[in-house]
Amino acid sequence: MSGPIVVDSVAALSAQIRDWRREGLKIAMVPTMGALHDGHISLVRIALEQAERCVVSIFVNPAQFAPTEDLDKYPRQLAHDLERLREAGAHLVFTPGVAEMYPAGFATRISVGGPSSGLETDFRPTFFDGVATVVTKLFLQAAPDCAVFGEKDYQQLCVVRQLCRDLDLPVEIIGAPTVRDPHGLAMSSRNAYLGEAELNVARKLNVILRQTAAALAAGADDAGATDNATEALLGAGFRKVDYVAAREAVTLGPWRRDREGRLLAAAWLGTTRLIDNVEIPSA
Amino acid sequence: MSGPIVVDSVAALSAQIRDWRREGLKIAMVPTMGALHDGHISLVRIALEQAERCVVSIFVNPAQFAPTEDLDKYPRQLAHDLERLREAGAHLVFTPGVAEMYPAGFATRISVGGPSSGLETDFRPTFFDGVATVVTKLFLQAAPDCAVFGEKDYQQLCVVRQLCRDLDLPVEIIGAPTVRDPHGLAMSSRNAYLGEAELNVARKLNVILRQTAAALAAGADDAGATDNATEALLGAGFRKVDYVAAREAVTLGPWRRDREGRLLAAAWLGTTRLIDNVEIPSA
Repeated sequence: MSGPIVVDSVAALSAQIRDWRREGLKIAMVPTMGALHDGHISLVRIALEQAERCVVSIFVNPAQFAPTEDLDKYPRQLAHDLERLREAGAHLVFTPGVAEMYPAGFATRISVGGPSSGLETDFRPTFFDGVATVVTKLFLQAAPDCAVFGEKDYQQLCVVRQLCRDLDLPVEIIGAPTVRDPHGLAMSSRNAYLGEAELNVARKLNVILRQTAAALAAGADDAGATDNATEALLGAGFRKVDYVAAREAVTLGPWRRDREGRLLAAAWLGTTRLIDNVEIPSA
Repeated sequence: MSGPIVVDSVAALSAQIRDWRREGLKIAMVPTMGALHDGHISLVRIALEQAERCVVSIFVNPAQFAPTEDLDKYPRQLAHDLERLREAGAHLVFTPGVAEMYPAGFATRISVGGPSSGLETDFRPTFFDGVATVVTKLFLQAAPDCAVFGEKDYQQLCVVRQLCRDLDLPVEIIGAPTVRDPHGLAMSSRNAYLGEAELNVARKLNVILRQTAAALAAGADDAGATDNATEALLGAGFRKVDYVAAREAVTLGPWRRDREGRLLAAAWLGTTRLIDNVEIPSA
């Protein structure tokens, strides 16, 4: 089987999209930063169920990294990624360089309020501006009918939904369940930073979150349950806990027991920051 | 001759645009805040030369008015506007209400740097965020091939060009020459605020700007010439001068004599703020 078309310019991407549009083909997009794992491949599979053509972008977006963050060491492995995308059946891979996405003189920033408040933003204040700006550009470049985002980055999924609604971007946003290893650890490109001992600690994150969500669903006090979860994470070997928070599932506003809820967390293992989230079953 | 289609919902707009797209018709857009005068009508005429269908939006955008500004008293005269657009041959007029453009929960803001620095932004700090956000929405709603903006709002024209380039909005931006009365006064909806005595003062703005641009082209010192212009405006009867500034014509960065320049000004007559700009002929 032949591999996907690989293009690194907006012009080549747009030309191919125009051809597919002319043929009346439905197009789904999966934006990624590469270092692809089974989680990403599940997004490609969903995209292929939704549309006749699947476009995957691989772009490590500097705009969503703070100067202190891991932009330079973020894993890059294009050959491996292309092989996985060929196996998965993606049709086109867009691999722009930084100068293609942000040419000299680039000066525009998109800020999404609402679901971007708090959680990740308390610790990565410019992160979602970087996400919103690059996602808008990718959607305007590739003009997909729909795009698939993983629930692993749950706040990002909510922010992208709000972005599309607010700007009238004509792209349907599909949220995809988090893919986990047999121990429940959410797949993440950053797991590659972890040694075996750290992996064993990392695997406790999802367990503690599920226990806490169950406690909340059973009536436990919100502040008490999330404080307990923080203590449990530190006791399990996490170095620092940025947050454990129960939120309303769509707006990410304060959780109310009569609404669908989401329990979200971010915690550090050594120099690696992990995030995860689980549903809070409704009462 | 029958008048333009008038729609006030994004859904109705998009449905009509889809039909025209299916017929392969080229679409030009003229975004306005209504209170249409000969300047706007010239934009419609240019749009009709460029495309087979002309869409005019009429939306007094609250996001580009500060709380202290003239949002409430900004002239609204829809029947008159529709009559002028019928005469001009516009095909569709989009007249959304505020809740259609900014539904409950709306939370996204687009900031364009570069040409938005200084000038208007020093006096209306959130103005271009409001412009960039609404223009992006209008372009995504109407998906025009091109859009026509007047040079009267010269900084806005530069900001919209930067916005489209930065976000890959597939809309060609066409700048249209300022339409002036026989005395050279730039057409503006805010001229309606002026009495006869004030109009006579207002008409000096373009004269002083043209004299100053000629002096600059002839080698006059930049700071000296713009200071003289400020004095001349105050002497002519303007109450306050926000700025008179020579800038590079495309980036609005510092003017250099070997580049095309633009002389821009904003000044107050009573409670009315007027802006204008002229070319600085290159040396």
